[in-house]
Amino acid sequence: MPPEVFARRLDRARAELEARKLDCLIATPSTNYEYLTGYNPGRSERLIALIVPLRGGPAVVCPSFEVERIKRHGVIADARGWEEEGDPYALVRDTVRRLAPRAGTIALESSTGYQTSLRLAAALSGWKFVDAAPVTERLRIVKAPEEIALIRRAIEITQAAMTATFAQLAVGMTERDVARLLSREMQQRGAEGGGLVQFGPSSALPHGGPAAAALERETVVLIDCGCRVRGYESDITRTAWFGDSPAAEFRKVFNVVHDAQSAAMELGRPGTPCQDMDRAARKVIAAAGYGPFFTHRLGHGLGMDGHEPPYLVEGNALGLEPGMVFTDEPGIYQLGKFGVRIEDDCVMTASGVEVLSQRASKL
Amino acid sequence: MPPEVFARRLDRARAELEARKLDCLIATPSTNYEYLTGYNPGRSERLIALIVPLRGGPAVVCPSFEVERIKRHGVIADARGWEEEGDPYALVRDTVRRLAPRAGTIALESSTGYQTSLRLAAALSGWKFVDAAPVTERLRIVKAPEEIALIRRAIEITQAAMTATFAQLAVGMTERDVARLLSREMQQRGAEGGGLVQFGPSSALPHGGPAAAALERETVVLIDCGCRVRGYESDITRTAWFGDSPAAEFRKVFNVVHDAQSAAMELGRPGTPCQDMDRAARKVIAAAGYGPFFTHRLGHGLGMDGHEPPYLVEGNALGLEPGMVFTDEPGIYQLGKFGVRIEDDCVMTASGVEVLSQRASKL
Repeated sequence: MPPEVFARRLDRARAELEARKLDCLIATPSTNYEYLTGYNPGRSERLIALIVPLRGGPAVVCPSFEVERIKRHGVIADARGWEEEGDPYALVRDTVRRLAPRAGTIALESSTGYQTSLRLAAALSGWKFVDAAPVTERLRIVKAPEEIALIRRAIEITQAAMTATFAQLAVGMTERDVARLLSREMQQRGAEGGGLVQFGPSSALPHGGPAAAALERETVVLIDCGCRVRGYESDITRTAWFGDSPAAEFRKVFNVVHDAQSAAMELGRPGTPCQDMDRAARKVIAAAGYGPFFTHRLGHGLGMDGHEPPYLVEGNALGLEPGMVFTDEPGIYQLGKFGVRIEDDCVMTASGVEVLSQRASKL
Repeated sequence: MPPEVFARRLDRARAELEARKLDCLIATPSTNYEYLTGYNPGRSERLIALIVPLRGGPAVVCPSFEVERIKRHGVIADARGWEEEGDPYALVRDTVRRLAPRAGTIALESSTGYQTSLRLAAALSGWKFVDAAPVTERLRIVKAPEEIALIRRAIEITQAAMTATFAQLAVGMTERDVARLLSREMQQRGAEGGGLVQFGPSSALPHGGPAAAALERETVVLIDCGCRVRGYESDITRTAWFGDSPAAEFRKVFNVVHDAQSAAMELGRPGTPCQDMDRAARKVIAAAGYGPFFTHRLGHGLGMDGHEPPYLVEGNALGLEPGMVFTDEPGIYQLGKFGVRIEDDCVMTASGVEVLSQRASKL
């Protein structure tokens, strides 16, 4: 993305800090760090910290041998290195003092490790630390057109890779084989990604587990996957019957899940509370008698993280806004039998929910 | 690994807690969580927490739809689920109170996210929180024979995959192509893994960056990679000349780096301070006139994390003990020209350093 995108994001970050009476944002490598700088150098045991004060900056503190790499990628011009035998936290303290001479409140990126947070707080003992989530979530929850374009591209690649993978399913393949095949199909289309593959009864465990079970005919195959295009994710689940004759119960459950998914899509308008989307889908599943088997929330936001706000879950009264991207993924999981989940990616528009992925057909 | 391994590890964890007057360990999914339970359910926005009190337990708090998955893998029998619309932190509080009725000090796993740490501290307001690193590092820093066996297997696979990859290098391949090929060679040998591939001048940037440069003849190829076997890592770097006639300077630098690596290997005995290993290698490089170009520490511990204690770095006086596994990886990086790093994996034994990988030959 062009540098002006990041200049704009930094300006918005500063405005969010100011509105909350915060004086400085510190982020260790994460999607939030990447959102503001255009590059994620990766998290390791060596401290890298982005410092965004209310005025001036931003600056990055990093290992001295990483200065060159960090300056080459992304938009950070002010990168200061600490030596291997030196104290990274002292360098953060000195950099914060230089950029923000008066101690105040630091918003620390939410995923920063606990140990790192303790060391930062010790080095900057005059400062108060708070969770930066309100700032970073507000920055990212409504997607700009250039972000939606990348998510669309990730979705296209994911769907093409899934179609190719389902077409190659064969008796004897393991869940792991299929997962690798899927990743390769994504790579061949220019994206890194992968997902969970579950056969038969294992499909009844959301998020599955590693498995070496071999595929047999006349069974359920669930694939939940996504890929990343320039930092933006897709997330799609398809559950299909492998064989000639889908069991009657599979067909029935599949269609209930599909209807539940549709109910939320049809309900959503700008301002619809997230929990109402969940309720709309849940109502369809409960009416069909499968209520206790829909064991998770309806969906989650999608962007630089595979799961991010807004969460479509009971208790979340947040109203959906145009530009919010989220999944709609009801499921019915009957332990010992099989599970069905159908997941599509959606964006809220001025007139309602636009489904970004190509939906599955009812059976 | 058999369940008794984990029973032993939990006993050792409790002994470490007791010795430090700590009352409870809490770990979110991480290698520390996996070390104690045999399974890493993965970190996400949904709280999963392992609770190890001084007596009784352990218990895991997780999303209710994950209870089944967590009980199936690893050794946790006591897994309690919170509902999607519920409060995971209240369930952690109730579980801690049940297992450790008197408030005291909680050691919180170091990589736990900052936001999670704040929420745990708020839910368990009568408790004091400290970093669990002294406990977890002591548990893991000396490897048991069954751990070293897995690291050896990861090293074997990595070396075979690297050999196969170097043999397939061809003009026109990009760094990314070679990285994918390498991952595939590892997968074909039964392990997940990968690494960094750097051609020519880009080899002078430790940790590189994403690159699409195409391979030409008569240049340097640096591959730094590893794979995981049942949770245990390898980490090996080879720098080679692609073409017929290695440049004289490449040959010279390569042999200096090789000698530096040997110097540390020959010095190490039980009790040798980590920093002395670094100094021994650095002395060789400085004597050859390349001192300023060896910009990072000599090495790091290796186990369930690719980088973990002990760190072979100036300022670390910790003495090496039999069973500690670490890398020996000096490098010389001349920006605008090329970089050479040679990395092998070692274990300290009663009589000195045993090199677990097959070293490169001098040029």
